[in-house]
Amino acid sequence: MAFLAALFPATREVFLLSALLTGLVGGLVALAVSHRVTDFRGLHTFLLTGSIWITGATAGAVPLWLWQLSPTDAFFEAMSGITTTGSTVMSGLDTTAPGILLWRGILQWLGGIGFIVTGIAFLPILRVGGMQLFRTESSERGEKEMASAARFAGATVWIYMALTILCTAVYMAGGMTVFEAVAHALTTVSTGGYSTSDASFGHFDSAFLQWSGTLFMIAGALPFAWYIKGLNRRVFRSEQVQSIVVFFVVTITILTLWRGLTANTPLLETLRLVAFNVVSVVTTTGYATTDYTTWGPFAVAVFFVLTAVGGCTGSTSGGAKTMRWIILFRMIRIQLRMIHSPSGVFRARYEGRPVEPDVVSGVMTFFFFYVITVGFLAIALGLYGLDLETSISGALTAVANVGPGVGDTIGPAGNFASLPDGAKLLLCFGMYVGRLEMLTVYVLLTAAFWREVA
Amino acid sequence: MAFLAALFPATREVFLLSALLTGLVGGLVALAVSHRVTDFRGLHTFLLTGSIWITGATAGAVPLWLWQLSPTDAFFEAMSGITTTGSTVMSGLDTTAPGILLWRGILQWLGGIGFIVTGIAFLPILRVGGMQLFRTESSERGEKEMASAARFAGATVWIYMALTILCTAVYMAGGMTVFEAVAHALTTVSTGGYSTSDASFGHFDSAFLQWSGTLFMIAGALPFAWYIKGLNRRVFRSEQVQSIVVFFVVTITILTLWRGLTANTPLLETLRLVAFNVVSVVTTTGYATTDYTTWGPFAVAVFFVLTAVGGCTGSTSGGAKTMRWIILFRMIRIQLRMIHSPSGVFRARYEGRPVEPDVVSGVMTFFFFYVITVGFLAIALGLYGLDLETSISGALTAVANVGPGVGDTIGPAGNFASLPDGAKLLLCFGMYVGRLEMLTVYVLLTAAFWREVA
Repeated sequence: MAFLAALFPATREVFLLSALLTGLVGGLVALAVSHRVTDFRGLHTFLLTGSIWITGATAGAVPLWLWQLSPTDAFFEAMSGITTTGSTVMSGLDTTAPGILLWRGILQWLGGIGFIVTGIAFLPILRVGGMQLFRTESSERGEKEMASAARFAGATVWIYMALTILCTAVYMAGGMTVFEAVAHALTTVSTGGYSTSDASFGHFDSAFLQWSGTLFMIAGALPFAWYIKGLNRRVFRSEQVQSIVVFFVVTITILTLWRGLTANTPLLETLRLVAFNVVSVVTTTGYATTDYTTWGPFAVAVFFVLTAVGGCTGSTSGGAKTMRWIILFRMIRIQLRMIHSPSGVFRARYEGRPVEPDVVSGVMTFFFFYVITVGFLAIALGLYGLDLETSISGALTAVANVGPGVGDTIGPAGNFASLPDGAKLLLCFGMYVGRLEMLTVYVLLTAAFWREVA
Repeated sequence: MAFLAALFPATREVFLLSALLTGLVGGLVALAVSHRVTDFRGLHTFLLTGSIWITGATAGAVPLWLWQLSPTDAFFEAMSGITTTGSTVMSGLDTTAPGILLWRGILQWLGGIGFIVTGIAFLPILRVGGMQLFRTESSERGEKEMASAARFAGATVWIYMALTILCTAVYMAGGMTVFEAVAHALTTVSTGGYSTSDASFGHFDSAFLQWSGTLFMIAGALPFAWYIKGLNRRVFRSEQVQSIVVFFVVTITILTLWRGLTANTPLLETLRLVAFNVVSVVTTTGYATTDYTTWGPFAVAVFFVLTAVGGCTGSTSGGAKTMRWIILFRMIRIQLRMIHSPSGVFRARYEGRPVEPDVVSGVMTFFFFYVITVGFLAIALGLYGLDLETSISGALTAVANVGPGVGDTIGPAGNFASLPDGAKLLLCFGMYVGRLEMLTVYVLLTAAFWREVA
């Protein structure tokens, strides 16, 4: 971090002090618990996964706090960063010290790759939300599975870096300064959504840049395993990729036609605005190029619902994720088919193979977890006086790691600064459980877990 | 219907004409298709169930239309009646012809018993939403099952009538006129919620009456099979009953304490208001004794979420229903337990017996159906210019068959009159699919169904 501070003198002391502080705490903890863990069991993976993100958010908050944010605001901003949510409490971004803006970008970039690795290496082993679907073959359980996951994670990091560099180059070609290009590439590929301007991506009034942003957000929301397979073995078929592309085409077409017909806006510009903002919300990035909530109730309802969708598993995206929607809709088809043949046994298929019942039940329980988490969070936010629209869309945008909600306060043209501290902390909890796909965190809240892990 | 018209001369012609009209159409249809159905198969049950409610709503709308409502309003009011939803487009109820008010009550009363019978006799056979849980033992499949269901349904009708008469008597004892008591008993026991006053149940400023209403709404939302078993064999244990009672106690306590502490209202009166309105929404009745949406954002969020809950299966209630919540929450516990013993096979239990996997998957698919139906309906309502709060709570209150939503327009102090016709028809669709627990209707929308049934 010190070299960063040197680059941006205005915030040099902030980062130096932060590096010292976090380094000191980290060093002390490392010294205190330096003995080798001898019985690292499955349950410890939960503890590890669960604490990494809390630690990351806390450490990431230190510079923001030393700079000028209140402790709650700094923690909110860092949690929103590390979980690649992108909700912000900051305004006046256009004149904010570049070091701080870059720090927010770095948090999202690290959070993005962190989540891909979590999704590839940890969640399948933890059997969270049906993610055991992505366990490697049964012969490779245990340490070998870990090793294979580690190789996979390594390849992912390279692709992630390559995408980021490519995105930076394209943004520069489109007219961004080096700083703007880096800051936005970091938060595009990570589907994070922090920007260097209060007008978000709308600050760049360039069709080329906005279309590039759209494509790189999609790139960040596709399964990274698919890139690896594509590079290695030329396997390009992926049900998640096909489904999300079809979903984009359908949603963007409908919304563009509706907007073009009802508001008489020029078609190509409308298509660009709709495509960018739909992709931004569905990939859970959270940039905006315009305040789409002024398009009227239909657009508000559509964007509200889109907030829940999410990108593909194994990407940086949050939300319910494409793989789960595929399985959920197949279960509906099976329910309908069972009507005709009540005694038949049907199995949902995914990527050509039948899905194990425990995966289906994991996916369905995930969906239930997801909905009730949003419900309870909305009620809790109501305690802090947030109106229903803000409560519900705030809870949803936090749990799905999207960024903006709908409504006057937290919509794409607003920000989260004016919320009471308690509400901000609740939203931090929402982002945290959402990022770890609920179950990982809820396990840590059960007494049985602590009995067994102790 | 003719005798009703005689009782209330102001609307005599309306009912006479309606009786003639529906009698004529019914008679002609009966003549046209009078041949005996020789191969009544399972799939026909869907057709039967699906068409009964459309026919009921249409026939029920005729008097309202002949009286003075527009065709859309009449259909909305009748659909809301027959599905025991209780959303209304009518105002000036206090001075409306008694015959019309009684007709609305009768529609709800018939809809209530109709739904219990559907829930006991049809849904289990159709395996809708995990309702096969309530199939009688496997030795009694086929015709015997139908016969046993018919006996059961018979007993249910008697209990339903007894409850209605008891409720009428209690209401009269509390000071209602005969007419008011009958009209409200019809819509209390059926958890319908139509009232004879624009102030709904709040018109009766009597603690005795409001507490009586609370109890009889609960009575209508308990499983009727439980009453029958209780009368026959003295089996009083029922997980649904226990769970919903605990849920009421917890929710009412929290909301009463919160309201008492934040608004400094007298505790006993607050308890009465909270209990009545919570019970009204959870049992999906939809009466109100006060405009609880003026209690602030927390209350609004709570009541919004409560709208989704619903009463017990095998009662007149709508919503997701207690049985399903029990199984969904048990699946969460199982997911958490599987973390500790990944290789263990766990089965959710219900009423002491393990639940079959197809029941679990039916329940979970129901939940998914429920959520996406509300989501799509909210988007569609957005097309008619309804704001997000009205769209979502309107969609939810329709699908859950509750009655009022939240917000200025369709909240407990408002009504549905001002909505555009298209939105009213969409809400009719919502009430209809909600009442038939989604799957029954969606099956009718598949091509495969019509290929097979033809």
